[in-house]
Amino acid sequence: MSDEQELGITESKQYNTGEWYAEVVQKAGLANYGPEGMSGFIITRPRAYALWERVQGFLDAKFKDTGVQNAYFPVFIPESYLEREKDIVEGFDPEVAWVTHAGQQELEERLAVRPTSESIIAPYMAQWVRSHRDLPLRVNQWSSVVRWEATETKPFFRTKEFLWQEGHTAHATDDDAWTETMLRLDQYESVYEDLLAMPVLRGAKPEHDKFPGAKTTTTVEALMPDGKSVQSATSHHLGTSFAEAFDITYTDEGEDAQVAHTTSWGLSWRALGALIMTHSDDQGLVLPHTVAPEQVVVVPIWQADTQEKVLDYAEEITEELESAGVRVHLDDRDERNPGFKFNEWELKGVPVRFEIGPNEVDDDVVTVVHRPDGESREVDRENIAETVQEQFDEVYAKLYAAAEENLEENVREADSRADILGTIGQHGGYVKAPWCGDEACETEIKDQIAAEIVMVPLDDEDAEIHGGETCAICDDDAEETAYFAKSY
Amino acid sequence: MSDEQELGITESKQYNTGEWYAEVVQKAGLANYGPEGMSGFIITRPRAYALWERVQGFLDAKFKDTGVQNAYFPVFIPESYLEREKDIVEGFDPEVAWVTHAGQQELEERLAVRPTSESIIAPYMAQWVRSHRDLPLRVNQWSSVVRWEATETKPFFRTKEFLWQEGHTAHATDDDAWTETMLRLDQYESVYEDLLAMPVLRGAKPEHDKFPGAKTTTTVEALMPDGKSVQSATSHHLGTSFAEAFDITYTDEGEDAQVAHTTSWGLSWRALGALIMTHSDDQGLVLPHTVAPEQVVVVPIWQADTQEKVLDYAEEITEELESAGVRVHLDDRDERNPGFKFNEWELKGVPVRFEIGPNEVDDDVVTVVHRPDGESREVDRENIAETVQEQFDEVYAKLYAAAEENLEENVREADSRADILGTIGQHGGYVKAPWCGDEACETEIKDQIAAEIVMVPLDDEDAEIHGGETCAICDDDAEETAYFAKSY
Repeated sequence: MSDEQELGITESKQYNTGEWYAEVVQKAGLANYGPEGMSGFIITRPRAYALWERVQGFLDAKFKDTGVQNAYFPVFIPESYLEREKDIVEGFDPEVAWVTHAGQQELEERLAVRPTSESIIAPYMAQWVRSHRDLPLRVNQWSSVVRWEATETKPFFRTKEFLWQEGHTAHATDDDAWTETMLRLDQYESVYEDLLAMPVLRGAKPEHDKFPGAKTTTTVEALMPDGKSVQSATSHHLGTSFAEAFDITYTDEGEDAQVAHTTSWGLSWRALGALIMTHSDDQGLVLPHTVAPEQVVVVPIWQADTQEKVLDYAEEITEELESAGVRVHLDDRDERNPGFKFNEWELKGVPVRFEIGPNEVDDDVVTVVHRPDGESREVDRENIAETVQEQFDEVYAKLYAAAEENLEENVREADSRADILGTIGQHGGYVKAPWCGDEACETEIKDQIAAEIVMVPLDDEDAEIHGGETCAICDDDAEETAYFAKSY
Repeated sequence: MSDEQELGITESKQYNTGEWYAEVVQKAGLANYGPEGMSGFIITRPRAYALWERVQGFLDAKFKDTGVQNAYFPVFIPESYLEREKDIVEGFDPEVAWVTHAGQQELEERLAVRPTSESIIAPYMAQWVRSHRDLPLRVNQWSSVVRWEATETKPFFRTKEFLWQEGHTAHATDDDAWTETMLRLDQYESVYEDLLAMPVLRGAKPEHDKFPGAKTTTTVEALMPDGKSVQSATSHHLGTSFAEAFDITYTDEGEDAQVAHTTSWGLSWRALGALIMTHSDDQGLVLPHTVAPEQVVVVPIWQADTQEKVLDYAEEITEELESAGVRVHLDDRDERNPGFKFNEWELKGVPVRFEIGPNEVDDDVVTVVHRPDGESREVDRENIAETVQEQFDEVYAKLYAAAEENLEENVREADSRADILGTIGQHGGYVKAPWCGDEACETEIKDQIAAEIVMVPLDDEDAEIHGGETCAICDDDAEETAYFAKSY
């Protein structure tokens, strides 16, 4: 296989989204598939892990600014602990990886590899909380979890092990727990809008699709270019279900015992999947500067007689950007021509390319090229470290605008079953329809086109249910506006 | 139990080190023991996790500055992969936690919860390395590992699951791999000396105590106040054993196929155990400012008529420190008296306390008290953010000096079996003795007083073996200088 072939993406994003995605992940050096006997697992290579580190850094700072402390709980949960909250065990049992032996010995009790940690965090919260002064209590853990799903592997979207953070909090009142649930949803929205250049919709999951044990599950949903929705992070108001199961109580100011109200919330590396899927194209990965491992690649273009002056100029500029804190790479490889380099760095998703040849040196300018649209312009050499920030912002705005356009064009309304089926079948995207609240009505749609209710709007003004409207499917009174979509 | 009792450490560091350590860990809020059915596991509470985050931050920056990229590999390793390097499987098999079922299904092949990741990283390195241009290849992973040891739990020192980092590299030559091994050992030494205020000794493990599959295992060893050594981090030159087992080969500049040379190196949360054990005292935790979650606690001391002016002054100072980037906490709780606060923050290991009463306000000064020695002095209010850095450095120097004195006083020499046994029995610490290199001679010592050879010096000038010296135990020719010690 020649190098050129290795660089080319052969699949089409538009016509073969799944295969195209897999190829981008592989060729941009983001992930490999797990070994034999471990299908569903992936190896997260440095270029993808670096993206995760930036998501972590962004979110972790927000968490810490708002009273969250990190902690670490064991990777295993005893089966009896998992059984204490009945919804959790029902929800996760079919997907749990069980440790049954240690060394040559069989264990007396099986240990679950954590699918989520409520069942081991709640009993310790119960020890730590005594008085109202101990509330709110907020802990977060960055870790991996294992959920043995039988579906096809899709790196970052669907894997048997995934990296995530899970936050767990306890509060004195139901209201406080709700405020917390919303605060974390806001922060997740910000990850997408301010870091990953993606707009999201906010909503609640329908009753039958809540997190096991939750009172309310809220979600941010992102629309992919192929018309499918991605559940991009969830924040759960758990009410008192875990507090009751694990005895998280506190004495209030009047010295009376009260049951606490808890929340949990998580964002996983699915955020990386959504990022890759949203912006990338048939040349490869596309990344905003906020997360790109290299924000600028400098490609010098020389002949024998201009090599020295071009390289000197390119090095100077690289150093200037570096000392301004820009993540910049000078690609001065002798054995590769500029065209090859352009392709390689496009594949890898570098948002801004500097092309520097003898003309640029003579005119004291730099040719700047944007990824993904290839828009190019000359900018002055002077103040280059400031200019480059403007270029970053421009690229970010373009990426965001394209994703926003896709979202805005693909929220449609429907008021009958046929309309829902037809609209999703033809366009994909979201279809808003009045809904009675009954799972059976969703099932009718699901059975026919594998679309489901991904959310109902959170805010009254978005709900748009007016008196007298009826469910698009069964014609009973409508209670909510449901967003139907196919989803990842 | 009254609050005062909760704060007091009842065990003595000198006379009951083990119980004292457990009490400090518990009462300073660092860790809880795992649930029933999971003895040997701990819950890492936020105050301990914050220490780990500072170790991570320090080391991760050094790694990235020296060409290391982070990645993430699966938590499981198929049994057949573990078996491909024979020393690894022999070394770890008795301690492996095995996943045998997923949901209701029995797996075709058992999966090991990773005890260390060479066996799953090496096969991917083999895919990523093709040419000499791909070398050196350096990846690191921050994760937990599970080793099911049957010994008693000691938080951070000995737990069935622990947090660590594991670095894995591949190189073109044996020399390059050795240089890498030493570079990482230097960085580990720096964690102890420059971050944790502890001197360490550098050495190699004896042949029979190397990491499974390693050519050389190097170590940094720290001496605890009770005279036992802690293996504080290890860096392994793996030679070609893993490269051969997993086929990590490259084409050199002459297009010939060559086998790569690999290394691995790890530092675990045992560093936190060593930190706590070394500096803490009968009042509780002692921490250098470099890792302390709160570097300064400000305790205002007021009567009714001075409350306002004292609090105003204390708040001003707190804000000034905060904006200078100091981690400072103002303890203005009304329901606690100053004495209680002093005890609480001493227990939690805050290195510098500011006491502020009406006299301090009137004189425009601050009373500064050092932990652990209680040394106190008045300093000017002016330039307080600079002054506090000097105070930090002084405390750091005191902690380091005390640990260094303990180390220097406790390296002794011996030239006979009786001398080794007697010296360790009486003083603990390290005993240097000429050694033939035979494990049987170590076994003789081990069987009698549970001391072992924790290292042999790395550098020739430290080896101190002169022609004609004989092994202290068997009288054969001496090959090395062995450091005997009891160890954690």
